[in-house]
Amino acid sequence: MQPQDPGFEARVRASFQRQQVMATLGARLTRVAPGETDVELPFRADLTQQHGFLHAGIVTTILDSACGYAAFSLMPADAAVLSIEFKTNLLAPARGELLVARARVVRAGRTVTVCQADGVMMDGGREVHVATMTATMMTVVGRGVAG
Amino acid sequence: MQPQDPGFEARVRASFQRQQVMATLGARLTRVAPGETDVELPFRADLTQQHGFLHAGIVTTILDSACGYAAFSLMPADAAVLSIEFKTNLLAPARGELLVARARVVRAGRTVTVCQADGVMMDGGREVHVATMTATMMTVVGRGVAG
Amino acid sequence: MQPQDPGFEARVRASFQRQQVMATLGARLTRVAPGETDVELPFRADLTQQHGFLHAGIVTTILDSACGYAAFSLMPADAAVLSIEFKTNLLAPARGELLVARARVVRAGRTVTVCQADGVMMDGGREVHVATMTATMMTVVGRGVAG
Amino acid sequence: MQPQDPGFEARVRASFQRQQVMATLGARLTRVAPGETDVELPFRADLTQQHGFLHAGIVTTILDSACGYAAFSLMPADAAVLSIEFKTNLLAPARGELLVARARVVRAGRTVTVCQADGVMMDGGREVHVATMTATMMTVVGRGVAG
Repeated sequence: MQPQDPGFEARVRASFQRQQVMATLGARLTRVAPGETDVELPFRADLTQQHGFLHAGIVTTILDSACGYAAFSLMPADAAVLSIEFKTNLLAPARGELLVARARVVRAGRTVTVCQADGVMMDGGREVHVATMTATMMTVVGRGVAG
Repeated sequence: MQPQDPGFEARVRASFQRQQVMATLGARLTRVAPGETDVELPFRADLTQQHGFLHAGIVTTILDSACGYAAFSLMPADAAVLSIEFKTNLLAPARGELLVARARVVRAGRTVTVCQADGVMMDGGREVHVATMTATMMTVVGRGVAG
Repeated sequence: MQPQDPGFEARVRASFQRQQVMATLGARLTRVAPGETDVELPFRADLTQQHGFLHAGIVTTILDSACGYAAFSLMPADAAVLSIEFKTNLLAPARGELLVARARVVRAGRTVTVCQADGVMMDGGREVHVATMTATMMTVVGRGVAG
Repeated sequence: MQPQDPGFEARVRASFQRQQVMATLGARLTRVAPGETDVELPFRADLTQQHGFLHAGIVTTILDSACGYAAFSLMPADAAVLSIEFKTNLLAPARGELLVARARVVRAGRTVTVCQADGVMMDGGREVHVATMTATMMTVVGRGVAG
């Protein structure tokens, strides 16, 4: 994977900082490489569903941002990224101390980029695969959206 | 759609109350009917992505809960509901004052229930269709999970 | 839904004719309206899976073409349509005499169009809902692809 | 991945033989391992869409069967497998001589198994990644369905 913008990492980190929801949830962008990112979310009881696990939508929020920034890392410097669609398959209850989302670009096109991400929970020393996502991201240039 | 449990509405509302993330986000369950629910989320800047719209994952969180409780309304009184998978297609930026998710059961099976939900934003008097979801929910009975 | 090309119906029908797989399977385009199509497939034993039902992939093939041409009906005269992604949820075994796929555009954008389609089987006088699809279609202009 | 049925390979191959559509399309099951299968489809012009590529639905048919039999290989001897849902992302035009679908189980549960499959086209000595699928399969026992 070859980034078009040598300043991709700073650009990705700056855009992640502008996602206010990431601060609200307590998520961190822990790794940026060309076509790849990791995003982490420490478990919080106030983000759970009725059985005390992280809500599937919150897991999805983290996977989606990880996918979006994996795609964004390969885009031109003046582009913005938008999610077109994603599917999440839930594999196991999201319990434990920390959710780690690992995203990678599967195919980067001029307009459309396809990404996959896996979510694992660190749960008392074990790493449990809790979710997998396939997402389609769109490159948007020159419509007045920044980053 | 015929509910198996005449007390379905109270059961749905009690389980929604146990989803701590719904209170954290500020979401409300505004309608419960057999196989149908509405969930609403007032816009909040601290739930946005980098362009100031509600994050696609937050929209998905609301659509997923709406689908889950639409399915749950038709389940037996001792069942729990789990999301197996969902796909969200994003149709327009989620800007405005209020997100309304309207979910309905498409097919209720013994083990698997398929739901669809649409998300609309109330935006200065207009209603804009911003997202659509198809979700698969599982009925879980007798594994020590409640509601 | 307003077609950009007044000759949309002839254009859709001509492109459907070029899908050789439709003739191979025995499928017919039975309705074309702006943003909507119906495609029908008579049941054939040689298109079945191991239990004697139409294979989920064959049902998907028909739903995908129906969605693609619903999208294509709204595109400019010089555009081509490509499937970006689709998800099929299978609701009931595809048995009976005839599969009818009914597709409609949910949102038509400049580059990306989102469609939904339902598949029903005519089964001894009953109409059974067997599958539902959400699909993303891309408008491609000027890359040397026709129709 | 540990098969519950030591005779899994013969059981998978016998069920694949009963999928009449596989013979109709000319597909072959070329590899069976615990939780993994490969299915191949030689290119045929009569399976193409309007631009002369394999139709996305036909690609999906092959990926779905590959996923289904990857899941089935881990199921008990008296079980049947049914597709609940799948999503296909199309990555590149399916042109070339041969489609190879490689499927693997991501998580095998008692009732629900999640699989992923990648489709590549052998195209003049190159291997091109043309599609990726995530699928949910259901284990069905004791409802009068065999294999």
